[in-house]
Amino acid sequence: MRANKLTQAEIDKALAELNRGLDAPWRLVDRKLEKEFKFPDFVAAFGFMTRVALQAEKLGHHPEWFNVYGVVRIQLSTHEAGGISGLDFDLARSIESLDPLA
Amino acid sequence: MRANKLTQAEIDKALAELNRGLDAPWRLVDRKLEKEFKFPDFVAAFGFMTRVALQAEKLGHHPEWFNVYGVVRIQLSTHEAGGISGLDFDLARSIESLDPLA
Repeated sequence: MRANKLTQAEIDKALAELNRGLDAPWRLVDRKLEKEFKFPDFVAAFGFMTRVALQAEKLGHHPEWFNVYGVVRIQLSTHEAGGISGLDFDLARSIESLDPLA
Repeated sequence: MRANKLTQAEIDKALAELNRGLDAPWRLVDRKLEKEFKFPDFVAAFGFMTRVALQAEKLGHHPEWFNVYGVVRIQLSTHEAGGISGLDFDLARSIESLDPLA
């Protein structure tokens, strides 16, 4: 099940794969998968959030996130699993697949 | 100037006016104007955020905000003023003017 809680070893492996080739990595913070994205202004930041929102709704899995002006901080975890699941990595990969210049 | 820092007395007065007639009040938390909005699901919450984003961009004044699923927590302050300004109350009023059922 994609929504099952992953072990620390599974998380370490999936995180290494997720971060391969990324300029800025996702990190484990407070048992959540976290990354901060920076944009030149609010319109760019909210445009990104809108695209993430559509991906999240499509996956049926949603982020915790914070925005102020050009900064978007995303935290992923699976409430029902009490930790990080495959769904969090699915959403993270989906977010990374968005073209940051679009 | 709308962006000037308000005194505590000015904040108290504006907050009382803002909250008049509202079911749920805005509060002062950590020297910011804060309110939490709850929606039945992510689509409703993000729809609300999108409408707030358009209002904020129109006002040229943006929120700090956090979302998880149906919860949207908004904090307003004016960075350049080092506190709460008239702009924060403008944005709060603008947010309250949105039809929550739309």
